[in-house]
Amino acid sequence: MKSNMDISTWKRKNLLGIEELSCIEITQILGLAKKFKQEMKGTNLDKDYLRGKRIVNLFMEPSTRTRIAFEVAAKSLHADVITVAEQSSSLTKGETLRDTAMNIQALGADAIVLRHSSPGSPLFLSRIVDVPIINAGDGAHEHPSQALLDLYTLQDRLGSVRGKKITILGDILFSRVARSNFWALSKMGAQVTLAGPSTLVPKQFESMGAKVCHNLKEALQGADAVMLLRIQHERQSSSHFPSLAEYTAIFGLNKDRRKWLKKGALILHPGPVNRGVELDSELADSSQSVILDQVSNGIAVRMAILYLCTYKKGI
Amino acid sequence: MKSNMDISTWKRKNLLGIEELSCIEITQILGLAKKFKQEMKGTNLDKDYLRGKRIVNLFMEPSTRTRIAFEVAAKSLHADVITVAEQSSSLTKGETLRDTAMNIQALGADAIVLRHSSPGSPLFLSRIVDVPIINAGDGAHEHPSQALLDLYTLQDRLGSVRGKKITILGDILFSRVARSNFWALSKMGAQVTLAGPSTLVPKQFESMGAKVCHNLKEALQGADAVMLLRIQHERQSSSHFPSLAEYTAIFGLNKDRRKWLKKGALILHPGPVNRGVELDSELADSSQSVILDQVSNGIAVRMAILYLCTYKKGI
Amino acid sequence: MKSNMDISTWKRKNLLGIEELSCIEITQILGLAKKFKQEMKGTNLDKDYLRGKRIVNLFMEPSTRTRIAFEVAAKSLHADVITVAEQSSSLTKGETLRDTAMNIQALGADAIVLRHSSPGSPLFLSRIVDVPIINAGDGAHEHPSQALLDLYTLQDRLGSVRGKKITILGDILFSRVARSNFWALSKMGAQVTLAGPSTLVPKQFESMGAKVCHNLKEALQGADAVMLLRIQHERQSSSHFPSLAEYTAIFGLNKDRRKWLKKGALILHPGPVNRGVELDSELADSSQSVILDQVSNGIAVRMAILYLCTYKKGI
Repeated sequence: MKSNMDISTWKRKNLLGIEELSCIEITQILGLAKKFKQEMKGTNLDKDYLRGKRIVNLFMEPSTRTRIAFEVAAKSLHADVITVAEQSSSLTKGETLRDTAMNIQALGADAIVLRHSSPGSPLFLSRIVDVPIINAGDGAHEHPSQALLDLYTLQDRLGSVRGKKITILGDILFSRVARSNFWALSKMGAQVTLAGPSTLVPKQFESMGAKVCHNLKEALQGADAVMLLRIQHERQSSSHFPSLAEYTAIFGLNKDRRKWLKKGALILHPGPVNRGVELDSELADSSQSVILDQVSNGIAVRMAILYLCTYKKGI
Repeated sequence: MKSNMDISTWKRKNLLGIEELSCIEITQILGLAKKFKQEMKGTNLDKDYLRGKRIVNLFMEPSTRTRIAFEVAAKSLHADVITVAEQSSSLTKGETLRDTAMNIQALGADAIVLRHSSPGSPLFLSRIVDVPIINAGDGAHEHPSQALLDLYTLQDRLGSVRGKKITILGDILFSRVARSNFWALSKMGAQVTLAGPSTLVPKQFESMGAKVCHNLKEALQGADAVMLLRIQHERQSSSHFPSLAEYTAIFGLNKDRRKWLKKGALILHPGPVNRGVELDSELADSSQSVILDQVSNGIAVRMAILYLCTYKKGI
Repeated sequence: MKSNMDISTWKRKNLLGIEELSCIEITQILGLAKKFKQEMKGTNLDKDYLRGKRIVNLFMEPSTRTRIAFEVAAKSLHADVITVAEQSSSLTKGETLRDTAMNIQALGADAIVLRHSSPGSPLFLSRIVDVPIINAGDGAHEHPSQALLDLYTLQDRLGSVRGKKITILGDILFSRVARSNFWALSKMGAQVTLAGPSTLVPKQFESMGAKVCHNLKEALQGADAVMLLRIQHERQSSSHFPSLAEYTAIFGLNKDRRKWLKKGALILHPGPVNRGVELDSELADSSQSVILDQVSNGIAVRMAILYLCTYKKGI
């Protein structure tokens, strides 16, 4: 085991975002995820590291995919999972987020996995409660577990991402996935291009150190991987492009445009895929697509996150 | 153990319907269910055959009864149960059923229990994913676990159903329960009569080998058991009878009409019962009613189904 | 262990309300809760007293707080928890409460935790089914687990409540919490004052033996503890006071009015708190507030309830 994969040096209680993580911490998470993934393939499934722990999935915004992935990850470590997912629950009715979290802590939670529409809400809670807060997506801010599973998938296929050209294409403005991935990839040495229509990829992103590109051919040219984003109608307060058809015509990835990518370049998507909109259906199922690998790797990555943030606490 | 109860010859990965099952397979399922039922009465509850397995309840149509029965059955075998039951979940939003299932498989499911409004959707999924698919009701096509628990209940009370007259009464046209029961009962040698108003019991059913009867007295005369169906308003695209009151007046089972049945004939109903509509309330609670036995036997039968379809897979 | 904490004499199968409990029974529950609380602090978490038991949370009225507390309590004793919480579930659709409960029993439940809007529904069910019924709130009748955790919290801080002045303030008329607490506190020898506007605290409560008081200063004067109730808009069929602002102006607890209480008097609230309505936000977070202790103690108290009502059954 390389020294920077030694998790005994892990000090962080919360996982709020990728922006704050060091390369060593990212490597520690992914290294542990790799171990978990290998163990799960073996015959010995007794990874009861979190037996008796109570993981509360506090999902204040609709989500099934991420919620289930955290649930499966927690149960794989033998934790108890309590889901609080109703938007209009009596727990939250007339109650501040602070009070909801204080109550969940008082109910004996050992960690809170939080999905919330307000950017910064996980940070806010981490300053109030003692239990670890794991950000499962906060508005358009960050979605760290998604970026970590994306990075895991890229490293698994490409080896290191250092020096690789990775293009993130689509609705960058409203995407926490894009932000978290930008931080993860640039920290690990990739050349990140943010691409899409100028209304969805404002030039301001260059101040974060990203390359911004509104020309699809240029954005895809020579890329080792392209990460597509779902067109998020629900997060757009007003229309940022004339129509879905026009978006697809200009920025949809199809077989013709695939030729612009490096041969065999990887295609990623956080799901659910709008087949025929941002991604051609045949490409989604092609051998270049690692979309289902992302989902599968997400279990091991979230097991690593839950383990690192909660294992030494309260025992 | 009789040789046709030897489950070592079980080869089937999916349970899609009764139509495709052999008598031997039906006997194997019910024989194993009987063993599970006896074990549950004993002191040793350690049937952890599915420990570490992840059973996903994918319910794309409202259901609590069947979903909970599968959940209880899976937990009784110590499996982890993940429920995906929201109609408008982000997992399914803008996503094809195929993609949803591929994602659930990628999340590490060991079996998918599917309830869906489209007939054939379990067959469709079984051709796409590698994990076992268990049909928990697909449109008006089949509901195999219901028919198996009905058969279990009948055999438990009548011994064999061979040569017995069993009448299925009610909304046959829209009923997956009727279809699955017809296959199960006729394969096992019962004489099956499908009864009800001609709008709900078309003559075409005779081509399947059923006896069709629109006269209630004739349908009930000498029957060893009558299986009532819930009048399913939600599955009728247009009205097939003038009113509930008229249905009850002509086809409702009450104490007067009970006399037409063989003495002590069994009364079955898949629930929930519309008391006073298809079945008189007093009869529902009489000693002839085995409605709660059906519910109870459903646990052992579903344990057997889950065991047979998932036990040897992936270990 | 004092003789009245000896749980071997516990005979009760159901927990329907506090009114029917003896002081010895109340002491037995709280004594066992104390033991569970101490055990949970220790290193040995193997309280698998309810392993293999199926606790069904049947919540026919919206609730997250109480439901989760029972879920956490049951899982802490290693029971399986099945939640039936949908208001419009197919289990309950067109089905009487009696049939729903009979079905849940047939599905193998070892106990039913019932939340229902109809007063008396837990008593009704307890006469029908064999499995223990635990009342988790029935209309404006009783909410026994809440009163027991409130009493636990008071005893933990005040020692005995005998002779102490405890004021319950707010929407008494519609509050099951107030009723259950009145019974618990008066049985244990406290002097209970019910306070609030005359529309919400009718004089008839005096026939139960309570002191009724419509003057806030008099109600709080010298109190050892004040128990605030949430203003329950949803349970009021018509308006019982002119406006929230007027309620707060006359009956809200704030820092000025705190001076009327005994120095260091405890402030309780069953949650969720309407900050700035019935309780000033700063007081809710003050050292006098034991609101989060109540939540936390609720786990151990509900573990004790589940243990006492279900442990010896069916084994």
